[in-house]
Amino acid sequence: MDISALLTSAGINIAICIVLLSLYSILRKQPSNLCVYFTRKYVAEPVMRSDPFCLERFVPSASWIMRAWQATDEEILSVGGLDAVVFMRTVVFSIRVFIIAAMICTFLVLPINYYGQEMQHKQIHAESLEVFTIGNVKEASKWLWAHCLALYAISCSACVLLYFEYKSITKMRMAHITGSPPNASHFTVLVRGIPWSPDHSYSDSVEKFFSTYYPASYVSHQMVYRTGTVERLMKDAEMMYRKLKTAEPQRAGSSMPCCICGGSTHSFKILKNEAESVKSKTGDVLQPNHREKERPAAFVFFRTRYAAVVAAQVLQSPNPMLWVTELAPEPRDVYWSNLSIPYKQVWLRKITILLGAIVVMFLFIVPVAFVQGLTQLDQLSHAFPFLKGILKKKYVNQVVTGYLPSVVLILFMYAVPPTMMLFSTMEGNISRRSIIRQLSVFSSVRDIPVQLAKAVPTQNTFFITYVLTSGWASLACEVIQLFPLLCNVLRKFILRTKEEPLSWALTFPYHTEIPRLLLFGLIGFTCSVMAPLILPFLLVYFFLAFLVYRNQILHVYVTKYESGGQFWPIVHNTTIFSMVLTQIIALGVFGIKKSPIASGFTIPLIFLTLLFNEYCRKRFSPVFQRSPAQVLIEMDRQDEQCGRIEDIYSQLKAAYSRLPTDSHSQDPSTSGSSRSNQDQESSRDPESLKPGSLRCGKVMPATEPSGRICEKCQSSIVLPRASPREI
Amino acid sequence: MDISALLTSAGINIAICIVLLSLYSILRKQPSNLCVYFTRKYVAEPVMRSDPFCLERFVPSASWIMRAWQATDEEILSVGGLDAVVFMRTVVFSIRVFIIAAMICTFLVLPINYYGQEMQHKQIHAESLEVFTIGNVKEASKWLWAHCLALYAISCSACVLLYFEYKSITKMRMAHITGSPPNASHFTVLVRGIPWSPDHSYSDSVEKFFSTYYPASYVSHQMVYRTGTVERLMKDAEMMYRKLKTAEPQRAGSSMPCCICGGSTHSFKILKNEAESVKSKTGDVLQPNHREKERPAAFVFFRTRYAAVVAAQVLQSPNPMLWVTELAPEPRDVYWSNLSIPYKQVWLRKITILLGAIVVMFLFIVPVAFVQGLTQLDQLSHAFPFLKGILKKKYVNQVVTGYLPSVVLILFMYAVPPTMMLFSTMEGNISRRSIIRQLSVFSSVRDIPVQLAKAVPTQNTFFITYVLTSGWASLACEVIQLFPLLCNVLRKFILRTKEEPLSWALTFPYHTEIPRLLLFGLIGFTCSVMAPLILPFLLVYFFLAFLVYRNQILHVYVTKYESGGQFWPIVHNTTIFSMVLTQIIALGVFGIKKSPIASGFTIPLIFLTLLFNEYCRKRFSPVFQRSPAQVLIEMDRQDEQCGRIEDIYSQLKAAYSRLPTDSHSQDPSTSGSSRSNQDQESSRDPESLKPGSLRCGKVMPATEPSGRICEKCQSSIVLPRASPREI
Repeated sequence: MDISALLTSAGINIAICIVLLSLYSILRKQPSNLCVYFTRKYVAEPVMRSDPFCLERFVPSASWIMRAWQATDEEILSVGGLDAVVFMRTVVFSIRVFIIAAMICTFLVLPINYYGQEMQHKQIHAESLEVFTIGNVKEASKWLWAHCLALYAISCSACVLLYFEYKSITKMRMAHITGSPPNASHFTVLVRGIPWSPDHSYSDSVEKFFSTYYPASYVSHQMVYRTGTVERLMKDAEMMYRKLKTAEPQRAGSSMPCCICGGSTHSFKILKNEAESVKSKTGDVLQPNHREKERPAAFVFFRTRYAAVVAAQVLQSPNPMLWVTELAPEPRDVYWSNLSIPYKQVWLRKITILLGAIVVMFLFIVPVAFVQGLTQLDQLSHAFPFLKGILKKKYVNQVVTGYLPSVVLILFMYAVPPTMMLFSTMEGNISRRSIIRQLSVFSSVRDIPVQLAKAVPTQNTFFITYVLTSGWASLACEVIQLFPLLCNVLRKFILRTKEEPLSWALTFPYHTEIPRLLLFGLIGFTCSVMAPLILPFLLVYFFLAFLVYRNQILHVYVTKYESGGQFWPIVHNTTIFSMVLTQIIALGVFGIKKSPIASGFTIPLIFLTLLFNEYCRKRFSPVFQRSPAQVLIEMDRQDEQCGRIEDIYSQLKAAYSRLPTDSHSQDPSTSGSSRSNQDQESSRDPESLKPGSLRCGKVMPATEPSGRICEKCQSSIVLPRASPREI
Repeated sequence: MDISALLTSAGINIAICIVLLSLYSILRKQPSNLCVYFTRKYVAEPVMRSDPFCLERFVPSASWIMRAWQATDEEILSVGGLDAVVFMRTVVFSIRVFIIAAMICTFLVLPINYYGQEMQHKQIHAESLEVFTIGNVKEASKWLWAHCLALYAISCSACVLLYFEYKSITKMRMAHITGSPPNASHFTVLVRGIPWSPDHSYSDSVEKFFSTYYPASYVSHQMVYRTGTVERLMKDAEMMYRKLKTAEPQRAGSSMPCCICGGSTHSFKILKNEAESVKSKTGDVLQPNHREKERPAAFVFFRTRYAAVVAAQVLQSPNPMLWVTELAPEPRDVYWSNLSIPYKQVWLRKITILLGAIVVMFLFIVPVAFVQGLTQLDQLSHAFPFLKGILKKKYVNQVVTGYLPSVVLILFMYAVPPTMMLFSTMEGNISRRSIIRQLSVFSSVRDIPVQLAKAVPTQNTFFITYVLTSGWASLACEVIQLFPLLCNVLRKFILRTKEEPLSWALTFPYHTEIPRLLLFGLIGFTCSVMAPLILPFLLVYFFLAFLVYRNQILHVYVTKYESGGQFWPIVHNTTIFSMVLTQIIALGVFGIKKSPIASGFTIPLIFLTLLFNEYCRKRFSPVFQRSPAQVLIEMDRQDEQCGRIEDIYSQLKAAYSRLPTDSHSQDPSTSGSSRSNQDQESSRDPESLKPGSLRCGKVMPATEPSGRICEKCQSSIVLPRASPREI
């Protein structure tokens, strides 16, 4: 591919981006699209504004860019949580590193590459892209030290930046742990592999075990029940009720005739407290087969955070397949249906899924090989002679080599995350965010060996077009939210329903966006010294990503649950991997170019990079896996001093009950899981009994059992969740 | 090599073995060798028997074999601890597996190999060994299913045996944990990375930290001090005192003139309680620079085992490099000089040592390549034409190909364990037994890629001679204890000293013997189906090993510390590795032999073996890494019920004091580490103040602070340490 083909590709992509972004800036001003582009605000108060019709609404503007640019880190934190901040830090880190890399490579490496051979340079637009890569440098050239120096400079600056990022993110994570209001998940341990006994129920076993071995810290527990038909009926009933309520809001509170269940007409009053009504209706049905519905899993609540962490980390039983404990995920993060899977199956599932992922990875080679073929047109026309005529046309040639490969690849790539998501679900993960972690690993592993199998310099062309197509275009698609937009149009203007579109409120898709960022980082690192022409395109991508993702976090996505930046070590490790891979490729290239000095100097760099990684792993990463005892104990003591500890206990159980059947498990005769009168009383409090999953339509900030903040220790609460700023 | 060369080699080795074993049976009857062959008994009561001179003493006998054969597992457990039992189980497991393999392969595989080609067989003694391997089977032979079947049978029986071994060893380990008398190490946590503060000493920091965060369970602590000149002087003084005592036992208790310190003569009385005298002399000297001598490491004692385990497992501080906790090793197992290494250095040391080990592994290729050359004489005489004349002689040929290679290899191999041991010491391990774990890994890694790089069937010859030389001969050398024997002879008959040879008492060299067993297991598995002729030789080795190691455990080695069979997972994993490697090699060979059915059936076998391993890893291995809370809490409660808990506290500190300076650190004004009066009082008890390391000459059973066994809970103490049975 020559420069003009590159410009063709860039032109197509720039045009697409400008069109999409202008379209976005118009669409977002339409009141009817409020629920698509301002989902966050819409969820909080679902009111339609009816702005007057004016011309300004149809003129593209850049105001949203300004808004995204001006938002502070505090704002992002309050709106999107720590995960969003850490994600944005990843983008900022990439921008910083690649600005440094671009500066070094444009002024040092690029001229050396271009004038590397004694040759007659063509006119610039007809110049092949190969001329700008390290491939153009003569063998045993003395100028290769410059490449080695650039490699050192980029690696060192990346390490320094990584170190400070890791440090500040660790600090933020600690502040997040100490500063966040008491969270039910901190006091709760998920127990699986409860041994079956013919004499008593699982609930009794849990009660007995924990009151024997943790008498001082055990509060109560909540069994996991099998999902059955009653539950499904209840869900339907609730949905029906909500529909009725929406349809006739003016009649609320009055008696009305209503027709469900195929023709029989009842007259009933809509109760103010719907949860209670559902409970009283279904409770009696559930009672008899209560015990049979118990699964060998339970949420066990402890008196302090420290006690919960200890119970989660210690090996409980001499048989490691029984009484398996781990810290519970946040209530909204729980993947209920997977909780019922017997623990003994989980390892088998994991292995099967690993095999499945490997198979998918191999299947992925097919489209990649096809794409590789497209970039090498000569071979393609050799293999398929009938294409020769078409391919000879210059424009076709440019489009085929410059644009088509990435499009094909992207289409296949879009199929991978759902596949992996399906796999992860089958694997039996108990929380949604553990899926993100795996996807990142899979995705990174997936792309590297395939795409970097051949030497980087020769694949330069492909990577540039990939950044242009996949990077730029995907960001434009992200901002315009094509699928929700179409659904909205369909609903509003064709179906003409006025149903609340609450189920659209999505959480930020970390599982696809983090691997994407990391992949571009990998491409950037590996190409930086070898083929620096890619860096400007990559920088544009990262700048655009910065603006687009900020905009989306501020306005579109809602935060349902939060990992506290737990994915940062993945980002760190992948970046280190990218750097080491770059260094190894450079070592190989220096070897091919017969420059023993450059190769010799690269080896210690690899070693030092690995050493740096090892240091960070020792120094920072444990905090991302386990909470420090010192901090937990301090928090527990503070809670106790403020007297809010009783409030917390009273809401623990409600937070983890999937169904409003608590009043039955509270009954000592059926489950015996209640430990104190105060606990029973508070569980009857209708507010605390509203289960999390019944609200799955309405999206609320992550469950915070104790809403009130103690005046005494206000200082410790660093960043309380503020409501999103006005649009 | 042909059968007659093999017989030559076997003959040489059998002769050596018979001579050495007969020699052993004579030497062990000599009273002067009591301290070499019955070290265990000698250490307990160092009295020389003076048997009457009789002919029987000079006639070889097999009584020791009978004795070793008849010993029960209980006896081994009481004498050598659980480690010895698990080691012997490894040997028994190998015998069982290879008996099965030998039966299958001799009756099924060997005939197929031998009649695999339509060829004229030579006379049996001139037959090449190649004829007995799978290499002799025709390509695409229908008989390859027999090899595949044999592989299945061996793999399955090995898995079944492994499963039951793992199960019973896990059970034994649990019984060991619950049944062993209270051990100081169970209550003790080693803390490293204590932060430095200008205001107060390390000891004060420890006191403050643990009484703040573990107020209910913290008892006291013992700082680690820098080893200095005073300590060295004290050691010398003690050694001198012991010498004097041995030289003039009849004068003990009386005043006597003595000359030390270059000419000045003092008259002094030997105190009954030497520890006390040393303490009172050196205490004042140590006092002033006490704080400066403190290192940022301490042993912290807890009220219960469970509390100690929790403190060891939980992440203490937001900075993971500070307050690093782990369960303390047994007092005798502590590697004191490495405790002073700052924790920040440890990871760097580990990495450096890893690099060093890799370098050594590569250096090891040199002798291996040389040995490989020896087995292929044709190439050797081609490379060195001047050798042609010598090599043509038949006998020389047989010795060179049959015996020399192994000898060269063994000599080099003997250099590896000391090198690795040195590395492990430099790495900063805090206990001796953690070194064993690493060596096993290193040794396994070291031997495999080098020796199995070429296809197994062709290296058959080499492996057989290796088993003969390294295996048989090394066992004979082990039993005869050449080095201690020579030292003993030198001392008794040439130097004519009567010094107590206590420093000879060795612990069982698990770090060399486990890798050796595993290596032979690996050779056995890989050769079993491919070249089954090796199996009888291997079986003889394992039988001999069974007898020799039992004999040595019963009579020679002493148990200073014990890991509770913690190395079994290494044995298990290595065996699985051997099996999978065998299956992969078989897959390759079936591929070469063009038998798609056999290859096709081998792939699921590999998968099933790995699945089995994964199951065992989930089901059993956690118990070998962490103690279950349930068990610990039960033990703590039992101690409390029996009232022996106070006894235990009182002896904790003494167990971990390297120097008898406890009385000073007991002083609250200097260290503030004492928590209760009872603790102080008991620490002044002279018995509890005798530090472990000062007794390093005299070898005692592993420290058991509370000697007395509670009558109430006698039942829980499954296998109390009995004294070794009479010889």
